[in-house]
Amino acid sequence: MKRTVFYVSDGTAITSETFGHTLLTQFDGVVFEQETIPFVTDKEAAQRVVEAVRQAAERDGQRPIVFSTLLDPEIQAMVAACDALILDMFSVFIQPLEIELQTKSNHTMGRSHGLTDRGAHKVRIDAVNFALRHDDGASTEHYDDADVILVGVSRCGKTPTCLYLALQFGIRAANYPLTPEDLEVMRLPVPLRRYQDRLFALSIDPERLQQLRSERRPDSPYSSLSTCRNEVRDAEALYRIEKLNFLDTTGVSIEEIASRLLQTVGLDRRMF
Amino acid sequence: MKRTVFYVSDGTAITSETFGHTLLTQFDGVVFEQETIPFVTDKEAAQRVVEAVRQAAERDGQRPIVFSTLLDPEIQAMVAACDALILDMFSVFIQPLEIELQTKSNHTMGRSHGLTDRGAHKVRIDAVNFALRHDDGASTEHYDDADVILVGVSRCGKTPTCLYLALQFGIRAANYPLTPEDLEVMRLPVPLRRYQDRLFALSIDPERLQQLRSERRPDSPYSSLSTCRNEVRDAEALYRIEKLNFLDTTGVSIEEIASRLLQTVGLDRRMF
Repeated sequence: MKRTVFYVSDGTAITSETFGHTLLTQFDGVVFEQETIPFVTDKEAAQRVVEAVRQAAERDGQRPIVFSTLLDPEIQAMVAACDALILDMFSVFIQPLEIELQTKSNHTMGRSHGLTDRGAHKVRIDAVNFALRHDDGASTEHYDDADVILVGVSRCGKTPTCLYLALQFGIRAANYPLTPEDLEVMRLPVPLRRYQDRLFALSIDPERLQQLRSERRPDSPYSSLSTCRNEVRDAEALYRIEKLNFLDTTGVSIEEIASRLLQTVGLDRRMF
Repeated sequence: MKRTVFYVSDGTAITSETFGHTLLTQFDGVVFEQETIPFVTDKEAAQRVVEAVRQAAERDGQRPIVFSTLLDPEIQAMVAACDALILDMFSVFIQPLEIELQTKSNHTMGRSHGLTDRGAHKVRIDAVNFALRHDDGASTEHYDDADVILVGVSRCGKTPTCLYLALQFGIRAANYPLTPEDLEVMRLPVPLRRYQDRLFALSIDPERLQQLRSERRPDSPYSSLSTCRNEVRDAEALYRIEKLNFLDTTGVSIEEIASRLLQTVGLDRRMF
């Protein structure tokens, strides 16, 4: 079974996509053909949505599903009149919030993900720059300014997690790769010792690590299964000796690693 | 007026946060104290939510607002019984989808942002690595593999946009900084000429650019207003001569730059 799904918004459509994806993951056995239509801010754009929905219905022989976050009542009405299942977040939830807060909503478009607030934007950009400067142990200066320092063997997921923490939460995350030399000493590397309370360690299944390393350097000692097994075993032993929180990242999304990290380290987001 | 808001989920709570943030941006004049509680997967965790909500109500003298994405009926019921305004995405939207798709939802927790699918995870990690290798013109090799190449003067927003495109959409984005030397020639730099159809140019208000550059190198020729004015003027002239799509990033969030780029270049997401 194939169904066409539209994400329609007057802004970036990121909320609409997140909202829809989460609901659709609850349905197995259906293939969803997904299309995002952002910046639907006038009647001409709304008319293009109506036409796209009509064409999809004709093509599929079934009505499409439309996840929408539209604020302008006229545009919302045009889309709502389509022959589709319309799931509109605003039309359901704005009213109970208006009653609860005893305030009328401002119905201003493009507010979310606006981040036009320069303060929040700066926090975010600074965090990205911090992550880049302190990636892969490139610099261990300014660790005083780090919210968290990720440690782990090469290719266990440190870099993407740091970048995600920066972009999503404005968190300043450095990362430090544990080398075979570090693991031989079986103590925390010197630059990390003063920061034990802000370390978060990653581990990984050795066979998965071998796959990841093989993509980078196939048929090398670096990517051999025995190297991977030894490094992971020694890293986990070190984490236990040093009493570090650690997380096995095998099969775990970057989002989940980041959320678990915030929860474990007790870090607050620097931007919402 | 201050109100406490909880984002509660059996997973990362990212959907719940996105859902709630978007709605709250519609209300001015209210200060929201926000708390995220992820991974509420058992009764003990649900009980901690109930207690946190109770304490916030007592502290504020007003009932809290709870945005929740909970699937387990027992856990959902425990949270729903709180003295709070409960806005639950699943309880509203799952049923119409079940009817429309003539399928029962699987009620499986932690599906969204799961990305346990290795294919999608690899697309994403490869895109992050691509962005890092091709940041700031570091390497102009492999431009054949780029989905898009961002061009613009230093500090106009290229790097964070490329990283966001990689993490959010799995898009392989390179970026190339236009130097004063490039701008003097008033032609596309040689490495870019073969790729005109996948270029996306950024511009920025010169005064905003001056602020951004001053944070990096204050009181330098690089950050002087006259340098910023000249570079922006010449860059925009070049974009017009070369007929490049360009976007003014002043006061525009990374999310919006990325969405506009996808729409303008006509790029599809590589992962959902």
